[in-house]
Amino acid sequence: MPAPPPHSPTSEEDIRWMRRALHLAEQGQGAVEPNPMVGCVIVRDGQPIAEGFHQRFGGPHAERDAVANVPAGVSLAGTTWYVTLEPCCHTGKTPPCTEAVLAARPARVVVAMRDPFPKVDGGGLQQIRAAGIDVQVGVCQEQAEDLNAPYLKRVRSGRPWVIAKWAMTLDGRIATATGNSQWISGEASRAEVHRLRGRCDAVIVGGGTAEADNPTLNARPPGPRTPTRIVVSASGRLAVDSNLVQTIDQGPVQLFASADAAGLQPLVDAGVEVIQFDSDSPSDRLAMVLDHCGAANMTNVLVEGGGDLLGGLFDLDAIDEYHVFIAPRIVGGAAAVSPLGGQGRNKISDSPVFATPQVSRCGDDVYVTARRVSESPPKSVSFNP
Amino acid sequence: MPAPPPHSPTSEEDIRWMRRALHLAEQGQGAVEPNPMVGCVIVRDGQPIAEGFHQRFGGPHAERDAVANVPAGVSLAGTTWYVTLEPCCHTGKTPPCTEAVLAARPARVVVAMRDPFPKVDGGGLQQIRAAGIDVQVGVCQEQAEDLNAPYLKRVRSGRPWVIAKWAMTLDGRIATATGNSQWISGEASRAEVHRLRGRCDAVIVGGGTAEADNPTLNARPPGPRTPTRIVVSASGRLAVDSNLVQTIDQGPVQLFASADAAGLQPLVDAGVEVIQFDSDSPSDRLAMVLDHCGAANMTNVLVEGGGDLLGGLFDLDAIDEYHVFIAPRIVGGAAAVSPLGGQGRNKISDSPVFATPQVSRCGDDVYVTARRVSESPPKSVSFNP
Ligand SMILES: NC(=O)c1ccc[n+]([C@@H]2O[C@H](COP(=O)([O-])OP(=O)(O)OC[C@H]3O[C@@H](n4cnc5c(N)ncnc54)[C@H](OP(=O)(O)O)[C@@H]3O)[C@@H](O)[C@H]2O)c1
Ligand SMILES: NC(=O)c1ccc[n+]([C@@H]2O[C@H](COP(=O)([O-])OP(=O)(O)OC[C@H]3O[C@@H](n4cnc5c(N)ncnc54)[C@H](OP(=O)(O)O)[C@@H]3O)[C@@H](O)[C@H]2O)c1
Repeated sequence: MPAPPPHSPTSEEDIRWMRRALHLAEQGQGAVEPNPMVGCVIVRDGQPIAEGFHQRFGGPHAERDAVANVPAGVSLAGTTWYVTLEPCCHTGKTPPCTEAVLAARPARVVVAMRDPFPKVDGGGLQQIRAAGIDVQVGVCQEQAEDLNAPYLKRVRSGRPWVIAKWAMTLDGRIATATGNSQWISGEASRAEVHRLRGRCDAVIVGGGTAEADNPTLNARPPGPRTPTRIVVSASGRLAVDSNLVQTIDQGPVQLFASADAAGLQPLVDAGVEVIQFDSDSPSDRLAMVLDHCGAANMTNVLVEGGGDLLGGLFDLDAIDEYHVFIAPRIVGGAAAVSPLGGQGRNKISDSPVFATPQVSRCGDDVYVTARRVSESPPKSVSFNP
Repeated sequence: MPAPPPHSPTSEEDIRWMRRALHLAEQGQGAVEPNPMVGCVIVRDGQPIAEGFHQRFGGPHAERDAVANVPAGVSLAGTTWYVTLEPCCHTGKTPPCTEAVLAARPARVVVAMRDPFPKVDGGGLQQIRAAGIDVQVGVCQEQAEDLNAPYLKRVRSGRPWVIAKWAMTLDGRIATATGNSQWISGEASRAEVHRLRGRCDAVIVGGGTAEADNPTLNARPPGPRTPTRIVVSASGRLAVDSNLVQTIDQGPVQLFASADAAGLQPLVDAGVEVIQFDSDSPSDRLAMVLDHCGAANMTNVLVEGGGDLLGGLFDLDAIDEYHVFIAPRIVGGAAAVSPLGGQGRNKISDSPVFATPQVSRCGDDVYVTARRVSESPPKSVSFNP
């Protein structure tokens, strides 16, 4: 009897397996950073043999995780691999993934997108191709770019992905005319904020919020990471007896202040890392905060207000994603506080508009998230080194 | 063979039929005002015999509409009637509904709620009961109060139900710092606003909006009613060559202005009804606008801004329902315009909170509606005159 003709997957099949790999990748969110989230599915004749994902920083990459899940005695020769990001070709915390791929001798490797990380950036694809393996790039590229937008931004720009969060009334206010803001949103929304904090590298507020709300800014209960708590305050408005400083054993606290801010030694003594601005320009100062976070390998930073800080970041075009909790309350008042201060845009038609936002309920609140559409390089369907 | 025992409906059955009657009633929205929406289902032995609703102002009431739908030769004696509002007992545009009920000789009449309209107000229930018919009041009373909240408010207070509408960015702004506001919301949201206008008795704006946006404020395409377009402007900011005045053949235009506002004769000549304030107090003036609308038998009025007018109404506690369109845009700017001006509340805990809001999508916009919970009199389960 002749052997059955070799299975040649349709492009719908490619998309289906890549979606599965993207879904697996996402399980690493909050645990893998500053690495990207990556998933891998190994398929033969339309059947999955093994799958894996990058589970935590320092742990095996997706390809090796998948190989570790291959049943004993099963050969990988001639298989098709679906990987959400180009396999790495350099030794970092773990040996290069290309080695694992080449050792398995698959027939075909389908990759959602090239990894712009300088030590990879097409080199992984080239190694695999050079070994005579069929390489296809660009299946579900948009979703892959979207999944790893924070990683991609850091690699491409040296700055973290900036998430702005606030809770507002249905009439768009984050505090009353007298500054009262507790509590606008309900319990379910506040729990969601704690989950968000627990997967971010930093939680940032301005001096006004630090002073008015005396927040703690940690994740309760803790998440996969412990955010550094950052106060941006030229005049150094952070009290030694504040909740932030009093909980310094629960996570680092940083203060960005101008060089002439006085009386900060007690903060330093209490363990706060004080960083001095090297410029008088408000926008340069915010840029410095972001560069500092990027240099510290922070991938996601959460800015929790207030309006002055968020407005400044918006004017810098530095906000990538919004998480807005809208409570079914009306507070009114011409002098009530709005979410964003700063200059703003003069024309509605010039204001940034976001791709279809995600909308859900958090108790009685409405929870809207919207994010910048990542500026991906033109989509390629086959590999061009 | 003995006759089967008479069917005695369970309270779940009562609720099911009343829900059906409420659903029918709702079909009259926009067409029956200033009358209430009413639905009626006639049932025997758990089977519906006929149903009906009040379809348009001047047309038959729900009970007569249902009777007209009874198949020829079918007797109504001994049936159970489900009516969403107490049957009327006075002659208005049509003869009293109680006559139709008594003529049919049902065994039982289930009514969702008493009608507070002074010429009814328990009198209808009393007449039916006096004829020896079993009367039950209060089934689905809360839903019935909710359905007819605008009618009930007008009857109880002499003022219309006030619906506030605005379109805002995700950062809670209805215009940029320079006053630019077109277009914040998308096409689908604007179509929804036109539907809303077409079922309201008036569309109201302040002088600032009349001047800045030069709106037309009519429903395009037209709905079941043609709203009176009202401008509230002490100084009389309504131009003769404005879109409002230029389209006066498409629906009435009213201007509320102070007695010393100058140069209004050309408006009067163009057909605008000018009403002079009889007070200098801003809140008394707004109360006068609402009283005037109530006296004109207006049930629903839609206030489309701007912030100054809406803030004044909010401070009067005069807004009953909110329709907010939230666009996935950020405009920023400390000086950008917020939906509500006025005094506002000083404490979040003092700000009115609404029952679970309705949330839906309008294209890429989020559409949130929230309404005041109607203050119904204590729910009664059986009839106490
Ligand atoms: N509902 C919510 O989600 C929410 C969230 C946060 C805050 N809030 C409310 O918002 C209010 C506070 O708002 P806000 O606008 O006053 O406070 P903010 O943005 O937290 O703080 C403003 C301060 O941050 C510092 N800052 C901002 N930009 C800077 C820059 N480029 N360089 C150096 N320093 C910079 C300055 O501090 P110095 O003046 O110390 O130099 C500035 O005065 C409070 O009422 C709070 O309750 C509400
Ligand atoms: N995005 C949206 O949904 C939306 C909707 C509407 C408006 N807007 C924007 O909002 C801005 C206009 O807002 P605004 O707050 O200036 O305007 P506004 O509320 O429309 O008008 C304010 C004016 O209304 C009159 N007024 C208000 N309360 C009064 C009272 N109690 N008694 C007598 N007159 C009273 C006064 O007119 P006089 O000064 O003439 O006496 C007052 O100056 C525009 O930029 C517009 O584009 C946006």
